[in-house]
Amino acid sequence: MKEKIIIVGAGLCGTLLAVRMAQRGFEVVLYEKRADMRDKLLDSGRSINLALSARGLKALGIAGLKETVLDECIPMKGRMIHPLGSDAFLSPYSGRADDYINSVSRPGLNIFLLEEADKFDNVTVSFESKVVDVNLQTAEINFLKNGQTHTDKGSVVIGTDGVGSAVRRSMMSKTPQLLFNYSQDFLRHGYKELSILPGENASWKIHKEALHIWPRGHFMIIALPNLDGSFTLTMFHPYEGEVGFNNLNDEKNLRACFEKYYPSLLPYIPHYINEYAENPVGNLGTIKCYPWQAFGKALIMGDASHAIVPFYGQGMNSSLEDVRIFDELLDKHGTDWTTLFEAFQDSRKANTDAIADLAIDNFYEMRDHVDDQNFIRKRKIEMQLEQKFPDYYSKYSLVTFKPALPYEQAMIQGRAQDQLLLKMCSRDDFDQIPLEDYLKELMKLSGS
Amino acid sequence: MKEKIIIVGAGLCGTLLAVRMAQRGFEVVLYEKRADMRDKLLDSGRSINLALSARGLKALGIAGLKETVLDECIPMKGRMIHPLGSDAFLSPYSGRADDYINSVSRPGLNIFLLEEADKFDNVTVSFESKVVDVNLQTAEINFLKNGQTHTDKGSVVIGTDGVGSAVRRSMMSKTPQLLFNYSQDFLRHGYKELSILPGENASWKIHKEALHIWPRGHFMIIALPNLDGSFTLTMFHPYEGEVGFNNLNDEKNLRACFEKYYPSLLPYIPHYINEYAENPVGNLGTIKCYPWQAFGKALIMGDASHAIVPFYGQGMNSSLEDVRIFDELLDKHGTDWTTLFEAFQDSRKANTDAIADLAIDNFYEMRDHVDDQNFIRKRKIEMQLEQKFPDYYSKYSLVTFKPALPYEQAMIQGRAQDQLLLKMCSRDDFDQIPLEDYLKELMKLSGS
Repeated sequence: MKEKIIIVGAGLCGTLLAVRMAQRGFEVVLYEKRADMRDKLLDSGRSINLALSARGLKALGIAGLKETVLDECIPMKGRMIHPLGSDAFLSPYSGRADDYINSVSRPGLNIFLLEEADKFDNVTVSFESKVVDVNLQTAEINFLKNGQTHTDKGSVVIGTDGVGSAVRRSMMSKTPQLLFNYSQDFLRHGYKELSILPGENASWKIHKEALHIWPRGHFMIIALPNLDGSFTLTMFHPYEGEVGFNNLNDEKNLRACFEKYYPSLLPYIPHYINEYAENPVGNLGTIKCYPWQAFGKALIMGDASHAIVPFYGQGMNSSLEDVRIFDELLDKHGTDWTTLFEAFQDSRKANTDAIADLAIDNFYEMRDHVDDQNFIRKRKIEMQLEQKFPDYYSKYSLVTFKPALPYEQAMIQGRAQDQLLLKMCSRDDFDQIPLEDYLKELMKLSGS
Repeated sequence: MKEKIIIVGAGLCGTLLAVRMAQRGFEVVLYEKRADMRDKLLDSGRSINLALSARGLKALGIAGLKETVLDECIPMKGRMIHPLGSDAFLSPYSGRADDYINSVSRPGLNIFLLEEADKFDNVTVSFESKVVDVNLQTAEINFLKNGQTHTDKGSVVIGTDGVGSAVRRSMMSKTPQLLFNYSQDFLRHGYKELSILPGENASWKIHKEALHIWPRGHFMIIALPNLDGSFTLTMFHPYEGEVGFNNLNDEKNLRACFEKYYPSLLPYIPHYINEYAENPVGNLGTIKCYPWQAFGKALIMGDASHAIVPFYGQGMNSSLEDVRIFDELLDKHGTDWTTLFEAFQDSRKANTDAIADLAIDNFYEMRDHVDDQNFIRKRKIEMQLEQKFPDYYSKYSLVTFKPALPYEQAMIQGRAQDQLLLKMCSRDDFDQIPLEDYLKELMKLSGS
């Protein structure tokens, strides 16, 4: 008899998991509280985009979907930095030409994965079905659909239901038995999306193949390109103070802020006042918890077990990587679910903690240091090192372009490299030091 | 018009706050979900006891209650360590004769504070009243009493309702507006209470004026004396493994564990098998959150905002200290509630985080190091230092016997002292080093 896997949440992680488990022959039932995006979404091209990189691609690869997805992406070769009062410059992500990240439409990718799931007879997707409770000992769920409560029962329930996970909530309600550790931690900054509209003939008004940043010390705007020629801008601002969202509700203050801090952006966003008024402010939080599994019957993965801030571009990538690791462990342990789930949480927890912490670090780095002298020097040396020594990976490259390396190891090695390079780059003669000497010092760190 | 303060939770923190706010002339209404302990409690003398020390006493002092409470306490001058296979020895808490901690009955103290509150016309206590929801913008509460929902409204609502705080839950439900940070973190150890019964004529069968510890590496039992001659024992054991609570459910395993690890205790606990079966296992968790106040209308204090593990004996003391600090800030800010509440959380958060972390540290210290050679050497030097230089305070003394020093400063200074002393005590000639040299090194740390 085929075992039945109930997946809660049809986001990116849940749909890729559904496809992969279907490929393996499981019976898969996928519950999603929202309506089918394919019916409701009007302009998927212009809405939120994400940076898809090697870890996400590797995970899509196990389901044979990597190339098709890449066809719908825009490569971003580096960060285009727009300092206040001086010219923009490109800071490549890596010295290797093949190392770049990809701007992808979140709903576009989600719809693609839903279409893939629909190709399988052994996958059922139930939309507008809100899971309210999971019996963690029996793998039974209760869900609301059309105003009525229904139940379903699987061999196991896997929650890929995001930040507000109902499966995690069921675990949290069993805190005493599970010794359920949990933390939610919010930055005192929020985010709001704006946009640059497409140019003539769907052309891009600013450099297409880059992630743009307007760093302003304690706040910034970033932009990612879309296929239709538009860019999605995201303001990362504090709630309080002169440039705080609470202060910018006043149109006069909003105009003053943009004229003072973003003059080079203004020509591209004539409609920003209206957009600002229409779009909501979102919070930026980190969620960590443990355990991720209960009684060998329920498991959480993706944002449900590790929600992170977006500053390393790894939220989606780490969630997709969960699917790859789960799939590999399934090869090893088969459907001994308790062993499999425990192996999964044991192998992933330290790594998702690491990317959560790196993402917080990068928040400060992007805000405060991308136009800082030592940081720019370090990036320059890193580029040269990566160009000349293709086996050398900067911290960013370890995280972003070395998908086989666990995040925790990338963090430890990358932080040590950064510390060393920043120290060397603070010397006045930093560019007189032979590259080989940089490499020699760096190799002492890893013993590589 | 007198302002009305609604206090939710009539535990130690809530009742002391009620007394003090009544002394200041506020109208105080205190809601407690449980029944009146004075009606229901049969043997308050023998149930849980706590270590009351200088911070708690200082807080009781502001309400003029310190001396009366001390009369009902048993002084504990040090830790009586019971190593496995060798004789017990006393490790004093301080080199100063006046520095000791006090074993006090939790229900006894709570009842005393309730009686004090009852003396005020401007205090109303409503038992069996379970607060279910707080409107954080209006200071209105809904509570269940006799099966019906009632409401009340104050100038402000202060939640002193412990680990499972309903006021905190209301704040958590407003996470997006408040950016409410929260963490719950459980040790993989639990606790269970046992007892040593009184001797003849209410005498104490083991040394009365000490906190007893049977340290066994990764687990331990402790004992505190009660006024009636009994001792309350607390087992701190892991859930898993040979000595884990999950394994000890089997009576054979339980006997084997006690015979192997606690032979010197067995003569005093002939009834332990029955007691073990009757008493529940409790979890050991740390709760941190922020903010503690909402809209100048609601505030949480005590365990509701900072629950800690019991290994520094500071859970009750830190909660009572909250009342003292709140009272001092009320002198400064008056009933400008928003300013007062913000000042309170600003001043307390780092300090309660510090004692939470110190309590976790002490868990490992008590389990692993109280019979460790360098630790014993360090304690010996610390005692001599405190005897000879009354102005010198060990880390333990800074936390326990210096109530005017904020916890955070005690932690920073104490950790630095510990590190230095452990290093010096690892030298073979540690007892040849003149005490003055130890002091000189220590004084370099604090600049004191």
